[in-house]
Amino acid sequence: MQPPAPSPAPARATPTRATIADVAREAGVHASTVSRALNPATRGMVTAAVAQRVTEVADRLGWRPSAVAAGLRTRKSRTIGILVPDLINPIFPPILHAVETVLAAQGYVTLVANTDNDAARESLLIERMATHLVDGLILASAAAGTDALSLCARFGIPAVLINRRMPEGAGCAAVSAVTNDDTHGIGLAVDHLVALGHRRIAHLAGPQGVSTARDRRAGFLERMRHHGLAPVAVVDAAAYTRDAGRVAMTALLEGLVPTGPACTAVAVANDMLCLGVYDAMEAAGRRVADDISVTGFNDMPFVDRIHPALTTIRIQHDAMGRQAACILLAEMAEPGLARQSIRLVPELVIRASTAPPAKGP
Amino acid sequence: MQPPAPSPAPARATPTRATIADVAREAGVHASTVSRALNPATRGMVTAAVAQRVTEVADRLGWRPSAVAAGLRTRKSRTIGILVPDLINPIFPPILHAVETVLAAQGYVTLVANTDNDAARESLLIERMATHLVDGLILASAAAGTDALSLCARFGIPAVLINRRMPEGAGCAAVSAVTNDDTHGIGLAVDHLVALGHRRIAHLAGPQGVSTARDRRAGFLERMRHHGLAPVAVVDAAAYTRDAGRVAMTALLEGLVPTGPACTAVAVANDMLCLGVYDAMEAAGRRVADDISVTGFNDMPFVDRIHPALTTIRIQHDAMGRQAACILLAEMAEPGLARQSIRLVPELVIRASTAPPAKGP
Repeated sequence: MQPPAPSPAPARATPTRATIADVAREAGVHASTVSRALNPATRGMVTAAVAQRVTEVADRLGWRPSAVAAGLRTRKSRTIGILVPDLINPIFPPILHAVETVLAAQGYVTLVANTDNDAARESLLIERMATHLVDGLILASAAAGTDALSLCARFGIPAVLINRRMPEGAGCAAVSAVTNDDTHGIGLAVDHLVALGHRRIAHLAGPQGVSTARDRRAGFLERMRHHGLAPVAVVDAAAYTRDAGRVAMTALLEGLVPTGPACTAVAVANDMLCLGVYDAMEAAGRRVADDISVTGFNDMPFVDRIHPALTTIRIQHDAMGRQAACILLAEMAEPGLARQSIRLVPELVIRASTAPPAKGP
Repeated sequence: MQPPAPSPAPARATPTRATIADVAREAGVHASTVSRALNPATRGMVTAAVAQRVTEVADRLGWRPSAVAAGLRTRKSRTIGILVPDLINPIFPPILHAVETVLAAQGYVTLVANTDNDAARESLLIERMATHLVDGLILASAAAGTDALSLCARFGIPAVLINRRMPEGAGCAAVSAVTNDDTHGIGLAVDHLVALGHRRIAHLAGPQGVSTARDRRAGFLERMRHHGLAPVAVVDAAAYTRDAGRVAMTALLEGLVPTGPACTAVAVANDMLCLGVYDAMEAAGRRVADDISVTGFNDMPFVDRIHPALTTIRIQHDAMGRQAACILLAEMAEPGLARQSIRLVPELVIRASTAPPAKGP
C-alpha cells in the first residue's frame, strides 16, 4: 500500500490508487460534483442519476472519499449503533440489554436497527447511522414524569405516541397517539370470566405510571361494577416483567395483600406478568385453569405455546405500527395537520388458561 | 404567547420570554458560551461544569435555543427513531416490524432505542438521536453477500461482530467477533440424544448463508460421525422463523426430503424453528418427546414455559453482549489494537422435549 498522494494531487492516478479526478473524468462530471454526490449530506444537490453514476464509478475504481468521511467523523457522539437481523427473534433482546448496560455505564447510548436479513437494507442502515440524524420519532415509551414531548419540541422533531398515551394534561393534545382501547379490552376479560361462572375475581395490575396499566385497572373495576361484583383484590405489579408478575402473584396467593375470599380467577394486566403468575402458581402447587383461571393482555408472540396456552386480549400490533408510521409521515410533510388520537379495538382470544371455577361461587 | 423578539435582541427580557442575554447574565458567562453549551455539537468546547450551569439556568428561565435547534434540523435524513421502554418484552418487535414496513416503503430507515423505562435515559436518547451520528457499530446481522464491513471502513466506523461471524475470507481478520462455539454446542445436543438411546437422528438446519446455521450443521454431522452414526436426514430451513421451522418439519414428517428410516429425534438449529417444529408435529398428530425428541439452540426467553418445555443449548446472551461492547469501546479508544475472535462456550439445558425413544433403535 502506498501512502496517499500529497496535496495538490497529481492529475493522473498512479496504477494502484484512483483519485477524485479519475472518478470525475470517468463519470463525466466535475470533481466538485463527485464530492457532492458521495457526501450523503450534500447528495441532494445533484440529481439521482448523477449520484448513482458517480457512486458506481467510484466503487468500480475503488476510490473512497476518505476526506469526506473523515469530515463527517470529527464530532464524537457517544452513540453506538447495533444492527440485528430479526428483532422478532427473542434471542436478541437479552443480548442487546447486556450491550446497553455496558455502554450506558460509559456514557454511551445505543441505537438498534433491524436489517430483516436484507443486505441492501443493512447497507442503507449503516449509511444512515453514519451520516444522518433522525427526522421524526415514534415513542412507545410514554410515561408519567418524562419530558419526552418537550424535548421533541425543542429539537423540532415531529413525534407520535404508540401503545401508551401521556398522562392527561401532559401535552397529549399536542401530539398524535395510536393506542389500544385498554378499558374495553380488560372488560372483555372480565366478561369472559364472569360467563365461565367466576365471581371471586382479582386484578393483577401493571405499574401505575403507565397509561396501559392505569386504563386496564380502571376498566377492570368499571366492568366488575357493571356485573355487580366487587373485586377480591387488586395488586399492582412494580413493572411489566415476568419477575414482577411472580412477586405480585405470590403476594396474592399468600394473602400478603388486602384480599377478600380466595380468588378463582385473576385478570392480569399483560402477558409478561402472566409468565410470572404461572411461575408463582407452580411454586405454590396451584394449577392454572384447574385451580385459578388466568387471563393476559397483548397476545404477545408464543403465548399460544406456553402451558397452558394463555387466554388473552389480542391487540392489533400490526395496525398500531402502521397507523403510527403513516401519521408521523403525514405530520412531517404537513406540520399543521390536526393531531389524531386513535384507539384500536382489541379482541378476546380464548385458550386453555381459563375454565369454569372448580366449585360454585 | 408573544412572537420571538426581533434580532438584535433587546438587552432586557420581557416578562414572558427570556433571551440568551438573560441566560448568559444569570449563568455568569458570555452569550457565545451559552450558545456553545446548549448546542450538542459544540458542547465539548466548554467545561462540563459550565455546560451544566448554563443548561440549568436555561431550563429555569425557559429559554430554548430554537435557532440552534433549527440549524441542526436543516438536513433531512429520512431516518426515524423509535423509543421502546423494554425490548425484552416481545410485544414490541411485531409493532416495530409494522412501523418499519411502512417507513421502508417510503425510503425511510428506522432506529430503535430502548429507554428501559428510565426517563433520564429517554431524554438522553432523544438528544442523541436529534443531534448526533453513531461512533461505532455492533453487527448481529453478519451474513454472506453483504458489504457491511467495507461500508464501516468507508465511513471510518469501528465495528464488532456478535453472534454471527462473516464467511471465511470476507474480511474476518479485520474485525473482532464474539460468537458461540456452535460446533461444540450442537455436539452437546447430539451427545444428549445418543445417551438417551436415539440412533435415528435428523437435523433441521438453519439458513446456510449464516455462520450459526453452517457451523451447527457441520457440527451435527461431525458429532454424528464421532458416534458412528449416519444422519437420517438433514433439512435446511429457509430462515430462522417459526413458519420456516413448520415447513421444514412438515417436509421431514411427510418424507418430502431424502430420508432414511423415520427419525426418533431431531436436533434443530435454533429455538425459533422449534416453535414451528411443535406446530408441524401437532398438525401431524405426533407428540414431542413421546414420539420424537426435539432439541433447540439458544435457550431464548420463555422456552422454559412452552409445552413440553424445550431441551436446548443455552448460549451466553449476557456475556456475549458485554464482551462485544467492551471490545468495541477498547478499539474505538485504540484503533491499532489486535482484533479478537472470541468463542463463548454454550451448555446443555435438559427439559421435557427429549426422552428415550419409544422403541429400541
